[in-house]
Amino acid sequence: MDGYYAFMLIATAFVLMMTVPALALFYGGMSRSKSVLNMMMMSFVAAAIVGILYVAVGWSMGWSGDGTFFANPFDLFWLDGVTTDSYIGVMFQMTFAVITVALISGAVEGRMKFAAWVAFVPVFALLVYFPMAHMVFSCTDDSLICGRIGAQDYAGGTAVHINAGIAALVLVLLLGKRLGWPKDKMRPHNLTLTMLGAGLLWMGWYGFNVGSIVFSDESLADEGTLITQFISETGRTFGNTTLATMAAILGWLVIERIMHGKATSLGAASGIVAGLVAITPAAGAVNLSGAVAIGAIAGGLCAWAVSWKFKMGYDDSLDVVGVHLVGGIVGTVLIGVFSTSDGAGGVDGLLYGGGIDSLVDQVLGVLVAVVFVGVLTTIIGLAIKYTIGLRLDEDAEVEGIDFAAHGESAYDLHTSTTGGSRTGVLNTAPASPTSPTRNEGAQA
Amino acid sequence: MDGYYAFMLIATAFVLMMTVPALALFYGGMSRSKSVLNMMMMSFVAAAIVGILYVAVGWSMGWSGDGTFFANPFDLFWLDGVTTDSYIGVMFQMTFAVITVALISGAVEGRMKFAAWVAFVPVFALLVYFPMAHMVFSCTDDSLICGRIGAQDYAGGTAVHINAGIAALVLVLLLGKRLGWPKDKMRPHNLTLTMLGAGLLWMGWYGFNVGSIVFSDESLADEGTLITQFISETGRTFGNTTLATMAAILGWLVIERIMHGKATSLGAASGIVAGLVAITPAAGAVNLSGAVAIGAIAGGLCAWAVSWKFKMGYDDSLDVVGVHLVGGIVGTVLIGVFSTSDGAGGVDGLLYGGGIDSLVDQVLGVLVAVVFVGVLTTIIGLAIKYTIGLRLDEDAEVEGIDFAAHGESAYDLHTSTTGGSRTGVLNTAPASPTSPTRNEGAQA
Amino acid sequence: MDGYYAFMLIATAFVLMMTVPALALFYGGMSRSKSVLNMMMMSFVAAAIVGILYVAVGWSMGWSGDGTFFANPFDLFWLDGVTTDSYIGVMFQMTFAVITVALISGAVEGRMKFAAWVAFVPVFALLVYFPMAHMVFSCTDDSLICGRIGAQDYAGGTAVHINAGIAALVLVLLLGKRLGWPKDKMRPHNLTLTMLGAGLLWMGWYGFNVGSIVFSDESLADEGTLITQFISETGRTFGNTTLATMAAILGWLVIERIMHGKATSLGAASGIVAGLVAITPAAGAVNLSGAVAIGAIAGGLCAWAVSWKFKMGYDDSLDVVGVHLVGGIVGTVLIGVFSTSDGAGGVDGLLYGGGIDSLVDQVLGVLVAVVFVGVLTTIIGLAIKYTIGLRLDEDAEVEGIDFAAHGESAYDLHTSTTGGSRTGVLNTAPASPTSPTRNEGAQA
Repeated sequence: MDGYYAFMLIATAFVLMMTVPALALFYGGMSRSKSVLNMMMMSFVAAAIVGILYVAVGWSMGWSGDGTFFANPFDLFWLDGVTTDSYIGVMFQMTFAVITVALISGAVEGRMKFAAWVAFVPVFALLVYFPMAHMVFSCTDDSLICGRIGAQDYAGGTAVHINAGIAALVLVLLLGKRLGWPKDKMRPHNLTLTMLGAGLLWMGWYGFNVGSIVFSDESLADEGTLITQFISETGRTFGNTTLATMAAILGWLVIERIMHGKATSLGAASGIVAGLVAITPAAGAVNLSGAVAIGAIAGGLCAWAVSWKFKMGYDDSLDVVGVHLVGGIVGTVLIGVFSTSDGAGGVDGLLYGGGIDSLVDQVLGVLVAVVFVGVLTTIIGLAIKYTIGLRLDEDAEVEGIDFAAHGESAYDLHTSTTGGSRTGVLNTAPASPTSPTRNEGAQA
Repeated sequence: MDGYYAFMLIATAFVLMMTVPALALFYGGMSRSKSVLNMMMMSFVAAAIVGILYVAVGWSMGWSGDGTFFANPFDLFWLDGVTTDSYIGVMFQMTFAVITVALISGAVEGRMKFAAWVAFVPVFALLVYFPMAHMVFSCTDDSLICGRIGAQDYAGGTAVHINAGIAALVLVLLLGKRLGWPKDKMRPHNLTLTMLGAGLLWMGWYGFNVGSIVFSDESLADEGTLITQFISETGRTFGNTTLATMAAILGWLVIERIMHGKATSLGAASGIVAGLVAITPAAGAVNLSGAVAIGAIAGGLCAWAVSWKFKMGYDDSLDVVGVHLVGGIVGTVLIGVFSTSDGAGGVDGLLYGGGIDSLVDQVLGVLVAVVFVGVLTTIIGLAIKYTIGLRLDEDAEVEGIDFAAHGESAYDLHTSTTGGSRTGVLNTAPASPTSPTRNEGAQA
Repeated sequence: MDGYYAFMLIATAFVLMMTVPALALFYGGMSRSKSVLNMMMMSFVAAAIVGILYVAVGWSMGWSGDGTFFANPFDLFWLDGVTTDSYIGVMFQMTFAVITVALISGAVEGRMKFAAWVAFVPVFALLVYFPMAHMVFSCTDDSLICGRIGAQDYAGGTAVHINAGIAALVLVLLLGKRLGWPKDKMRPHNLTLTMLGAGLLWMGWYGFNVGSIVFSDESLADEGTLITQFISETGRTFGNTTLATMAAILGWLVIERIMHGKATSLGAASGIVAGLVAITPAAGAVNLSGAVAIGAIAGGLCAWAVSWKFKMGYDDSLDVVGVHLVGGIVGTVLIGVFSTSDGAGGVDGLLYGGGIDSLVDQVLGVLVAVVFVGVLTTIIGLAIKYTIGLRLDEDAEVEGIDFAAHGESAYDLHTSTTGGSRTGVLNTAPASPTSPTRNEGAQA
């Protein structure tokens, strides 16, 4: 077995782990304690639904042939005609679909009907993500963003992060603000979970970024040669991913310190994600200095961008817009500035004398992504709003979506001195006899 | 170095991680806050004890030669005669022994003497697991389940999951119910830990299942060829593992919704494990449709099976029986229905025109596992019951096993305004001056 | 792509994960709830600062040429002249620098100015770690510990663990004790985090130890041959790392049981780390029996060593000295006893008839490390003490460094019934209107 496959198997497991449990923890920790389980559930069910749908039509829409927006969904329906030796590639791409959809959930904390989320997930995957993946990753001649415009996007600045960021923005505009926002304090309920999630995301992201270069050229699986160019490309990608993230942590903390007087742990965790988001499209195109620049700019800018919601009044609860949209734009656009001709795209950016052409392509790519995702998500969101309804009813939101939608509360930390904890201090939610929670006895 | 070894090194680390910390977290989160540390400790000490014992005699009992139940424990005692280039394979198999024993601990939450667990672990490994691994995995001609019966078990439906499930059932019947069960609420004390654990188990399970196909044929390590068949098999296994898990999440949530009105986060986490358990024996034998069917059936059936304990009155506290025994049977038996002749076993199941023979073999394999494990675990359990004693004394159980057995409590979350937290709201357990907890000062 | 690179890519991600989030969680869980975020932040910012500095001059100081203490920092400044196909090796070594610095943070819980830590990190990396890595890992002829003394250190007994342990001891002597220590109880606030961290450290450590043998000989990347010797070395290292850790868990728990009457979960988690620390220098040099001996001795001795601070009165808060200094010395010195000539160093230890020479070299290596790190860290610590100041002011320490330095508190677990939690029971820290915490509304 070539090292190619060894790496891709692990990389795919890593990227799936980014959604379950890493993103669920990152977002869950930032949620309020009465909505953490719902937040985590949104990632878990997104993984289940999108994964199965991807095998059904997602791979075919992305990779079965040419097309401006997508390829034929039925050519390779349920992987019919795909031999099992290509399954790892399918699974790898599937994990990208999963996390893109799950990323959106952070914006709607505590107030979106669970049924609405369950409806949104497959429709969004089908109408928005699968086409975006075709336009960006399959890169056929006619594919809009990669083929026609020629914008570079190594691992998903447009297809994943701008995509999720715009979708999040649309959803929160349709959903409205949480009750009490921004007057009431809505602090992260458990920052240790958020830091854990950020750390696991960082590890998994090596599968995401390095796996993308490995995936992109299966000829590299050829045995018998020490493929120096390949080792170079993975090394470059790994190094850039690492350095950009480190620079983004520092960038975020410095700006936060200047703006608010303190460097926070939430800032460090967010800086990790901002840096990883920004380097995602650029990881193969720039050198280490470019990576540090992109990371530092993304970290600093996102640290500022997460305050925009307060000024403009949209409740992007866990800052999907501030981090993924802004970070995704930073990374995608700055390829046009910092790319070097020995990198993955073979093009010099503005800074290296390559002129403005690449920069224009990158901006065009961003604009197409913003418009495509924005229009389609608005249609999907409105359709759900006027059928199932998007918004949780007010009583349930006040009580907490964990109990209202799932019949659970996350914590029961009170150490009682009898055979169980009946009225934990931390659970003011009434213990319902109809609650489906296992281990309750009452359901017997 | 061939990719074979690169993969096996990581896969082995993954499977060990499934026990420490993933399973410990999955179970720990479902425990009550007064028994979470004991629950996690049961996994940690199982890893330590079983691992060392495996090197002593486990490998030899499994792999040193033929035998109906086991091979000679002393032929390869302490790996004498095993060259270090085979150590990765030994370590890989060792991690299976570790997790099988640890899985049992979920059934006995909060009431089994720690000393009884420490005694049970090596005896069970020696008398039950090591033979089961020989009968199933080594697959010598005389080995009972694989060689003689010819039942297929890819990665441990019988050897790991039915094994742990039956052992759990026996132990809880010998131990009795927790005080207050099922009248008192005994809710999971921290569902975020359970979801984290489930997510890490999912990632680690790729080492478990895909590693099993890699392990099974070292000729695949031969360099110089692009081994298409091999890539196919790993791709198939990876795909099946993924799709079955996703289907099981949905299966569990749908049945839960129908039965109890709500889809829970505990259900999503449990669905992950149920799907992984069920696909474990079948991951190489079926195609993607079969994997989805097995996953959905396992998820739905286990969602129902976890309520059986209330009807029948056995306190399988964290549902080892409901998930591992039931899920393991589902996956092992359904190979006889869904397997395809291009899969690992080369046999068509009932659905693909292969007749009933394979199904009969699978059912026989299950029955042998149930009887073998059931009888031996009963003997071991009774021996401990009438010597060391299995059950914690009543006062200690009421107080909580964490404090009683380990002198600790898991959480001290109260932010005091003095130099430490002396009487945290959450720790009603008296601060004992003899507590061995580090950082207490009192021990100086 | 050869399996060599597949493995190194993952191993590097693993070792980085050991710091963020594993070590941060391991230490964070042992901290008080008012200082957990600061504790985690110390690891996060250490990763960011040290990583970037390593690329600037760290690699060059370690690997650009000969030198007793270090090589020319500017020969390969910012990797100038290093081709990208060597980046994985650079990144791998970088992760060692990161974790060494982060390890120190456990000693200074709750009382070191964050600004002082931010200043300490790069200076310590530059003046202490980068030279230590040269002296030990690059192993040029003139390099002090490896080249001149000839001490064996496979993966960092001296360079990483004794280094961090001595630095920790120096810092706590300069900083002084926490207010109230040892009179007040200062219990770990969340042992589930500590156990999670220990488990992730264990997984990541396979990257650390096995990666070190892979890294050490790139000729092993040659394709076309099944390199049996190489497979043997990785197998031996993997096996030793596993067995030593298991033995250390048991060693710690037994001694703890004898000394304090109870085996604790904190002991199991600490035993994991003690065993991993001790086997780190010796993983390639000894056989499985030697690994078990080293692990058991380290586990037992460290279990005792963590009580020394109470007798001698230094507040090594989370036992960096007791675990990393003591464990590092155990492993480094015992190479001279247990090494076998078929191991990595090719030398028989005392027990295998090799005489006392190797043991003397090992002890000399330890002494040089202790003196070098001790002297330089004292100078750095004093310089910071008399400029920025090391110690948090008293009011801030009482209030808690999380709030004082970062404006945050880790938990807000109270499920309120209104739109947010305003006065969580668990947050007695006053909600400050100037707090920079995101999602607070007040900053709009």
